Amino acid sequence: MEQSRKKFIQQATLGVAATMAIPFAGKAAIAQKVSAQAAPALPVGIAGYTFAKFDVEKSIAMMKRLDLHYLSVKDFHLPLDSSPEKIAAVLAQFAAAGIKVYTVGVIYMKTQEAVDTAFSYAKKVGVDMIVGVPNYDLLDYAEQKVKSTNIRLAIHNHGPEDLLYPSPKEVLERIKTRDTKMGLCMDIGHAKRTGANLEAAIKEAGPRLFDLHIKDVTGALKEAKAIEIGRGVIDFPGVVKALRGISYKGLCSIEYEKDMTDPLPGIAESTGFFKGVITAGM
Amino acid sequence: MEQSRKKFIQQATLGVAATMAIPFAGKAAIAQKVSAQAAPALPVGIAGYTFAKFDVEKSIAMMKRLDLHYLSVKDFHLPLDSSPEKIAAVLAQFAAAGIKVYTVGVIYMKTQEAVDTAFSYAKKVGVDMIVGVPNYDLLDYAEQKVKSTNIRLAIHNHGPEDLLYPSPKEVLERIKTRDTKMGLCMDIGHAKRTGANLEAAIKEAGPRLFDLHIKDVTGALKEAKAIEIGRGVIDFPGVVKALRGISYKGLCSIEYEKDMTDPLPGIAESTGFFKGVITAGM
Repeated sequence: MEQSRKKFIQQATLGVAATMAIPFAGKAAIAQKVSAQAAPALPVGIAGYTFAKFDVEKSIAMMKRLDLHYLSVKDFHLPLDSSPEKIAAVLAQFAAAGIKVYTVGVIYMKTQEAVDTAFSYAKKVGVDMIVGVPNYDLLDYAEQKVKSTNIRLAIHNHGPEDLLYPSPKEVLERIKTRDTKMGLCMDIGHAKRTGANLEAAIKEAGPRLFDLHIKDVTGALKEAKAIEIGRGVIDFPGVVKALRGISYKGLCSIEYEKDMTDPLPGIAESTGFFKGVITAGM
Repeated sequence: MEQSRKKFIQQATLGVAATMAIPFAGKAAIAQKVSAQAAPALPVGIAGYTFAKFDVEKSIAMMKRLDLHYLSVKDFHLPLDSSPEKIAAVLAQFAAAGIKVYTVGVIYMKTQEAVDTAFSYAKKVGVDMIVGVPNYDLLDYAEQKVKSTNIRLAIHNHGPEDLLYPSPKEVLERIKTRDTKMGLCMDIGHAKRTGANLEAAIKEAGPRLFDLHIKDVTGALKEAKAIEIGRGVIDFPGVVKALRGISYKGLCSIEYEKDMTDPLPGIAESTGFFKGVITAGM
């Protein structure tokens, strides 16, 4: 009975992964098993900033050890001005390790040229979504780009210090009447530091919630620090329940920002905790 | 709301820890906060075998990083023939790091002298429980010792290869009519490898379940290997529910037996997963 339940969870996870609306990057495509059973799993990935102090090889080694297979790639691993050959080579490195680059970012867009660059880069990388931060006066232009390219834009909130999008509400109020390919990458740690109610924010975002940066923080205040998931103030069972409540279809990408020169144990504990909460709620 | 819930969980955990029936080791006593709220938390510890390749200092460093505070100490860290001074020194090392030695073992008892040694050692270490493996013909003698010393004996099951106690049932059938200080340290991984139904075994053990070695395994068969908790076949939400069902009052000690020369990431993932399941079920 235990085994069959486990098997179901594994198949369900594969099922969702296989039906995610993320196109593969040409030759870098990873073989995936397709299951007929698609339950509301919450696949776990990694936000690339976690590996800010490590090159691609070392980042891959950590992801393999963590048994994680989805990456939101950061520019320090794949620069925005990379040649097509460079992009293919880096994607092939990840693919060889069973890792799928499912989005790019966070990319700041302060000029029209930066918007053009971001969408051109995303197209070359072969992802259908950008995690980005466009200036307010570029939202109309960004909306034109999501329409013309069919690449979604998930705007990232960065906490009390962020002059544009401190919390999910500043994102949602500026996109809610725009094209449905404009959405939110909710950073739950930064949102928590603004005092936001995460469950309400997830519910409010609904289908506009495209991506997640999952972390924990020491308090619901500006000065709070990043900490291993489970040791801070965020109610993860509540977050997971809220995600299931909106039938969230995206990734849950761990972004670990403590011990950045020696992050593996902290990422491991964080990943374990989040997966434990997910598993317990199934 | 999220914060108050979290706070409650933290207080509840402290509450249970503070009310655990484990005497402190004299000068090595650790200051503990006592809470009026005592909810059915499941405090997480470490089984000392996890650190078989590391000395006391390195083991402490890992436990501190993992934020774990309860240890079932193994003889390689505190030999059975240690002088009182040696015992005091090692306990003081752990205590200075906020770590409480809550039991000793696993200790094999193949002779009457070995039983005497084990109980004498436990008394000197200041614990109220031994995790041990007495030969069948020593059970009467061991029972006399638990009565005369008031030190409990938790018999450990070691899987299909174990000629004495492969699964919890071989323990329970030999102690169920004996003194109530005779009980079980259930190793859920080894039990799983015998094909045991863990939830039924926990229910059957009830108040005789004194201690736990928590791990995951790749299959419900003899040849199965240890693996990070959450990646194997054990249904942890089911195990946790069963433990709550019997109002389990002991420790849940992680015993990680993979990557034994570089275990920290695996212990961290395992600890995180188990804590995540516990938190989600509260």
